[in-house]
Amino acid sequence: MDGVHLLGEWYGCPAETPEFTRADALRKLCLDVARAAGLTVVGDAFHQFVPQGVTGTVLLAESHLAIHTWPEYGFVTVDVYVCNLATDNSAKAERLFRALESALKPQRARFQTIHRGGKDE
Amino acid sequence: MDGVHLLGEWYGCPAETPEFTRADALRKLCLDVARAAGLTVVGDAFHQFVPQGVTGTVLLAESHLAIHTWPEYGFVTVDVYVCNLATDNSAKAERLFRALESALKPQRARFQTIHRGGKDE
Repeated sequence: MDGVHLLGEWYGCPAETPEFTRADALRKLCLDVARAAGLTVVGDAFHQFVPQGVTGTVLLAESHLAIHTWPEYGFVTVDVYVCNLATDNSAKAERLFRALESALKPQRARFQTIHRGGKDE
Repeated sequence: MDGVHLLGEWYGCPAETPEFTRADALRKLCLDVARAAGLTVVGDAFHQFVPQGVTGTVLLAESHLAIHTWPEYGFVTVDVYVCNLATDNSAKAERLFRALESALKPQRARFQTIHRGGKDE
């Protein structure tokens, strides 16, 4: 099952962004940008940490999005993983990833792409 | 935010394993082994595909577990990501990963470990 997994580490995210600190705001953003990217949402779970921080995942028909925020460090990690069962979803994954990055505005970022699955040899 | 991310691709998983095909069984397994590994569950979402296949995530205080099954190909992908905020959770992540592997019994596997986060340079 061929697929692509985008991994981001975002530093220096502005503390005043509501999506960075509040689970309800981050959930809405993730669902909105996943659908706008053309991906199919089949479930989600978000958790608000106290005093701060959010962790959440969106289940996609194409695989998943996972995001974790640490407002005390200005830090976020993001995973967007899509499989390419019926069609190549790589461009949709990239669109989702970049939409989240635009919303959370990291000053510095690390990024890597991993190929998942492939032939059973 | 230092962390470790374990990625598995499992091939040749036996079709008769209930956890491989049924969302309720896979959810119970994931929650049980996450807790048994000493990790803290803060939420979850699982989805049953029709006619087959399951996708699910468990939110952890330490980050997340994500799993996708494709019974028609005998194939599973697994992600276990833990951050090491207060303590090194790497051994717990490894324990969780190996418990899932024991349950789903792949005949062949690929495995990689990725370091997440680290210093903001």
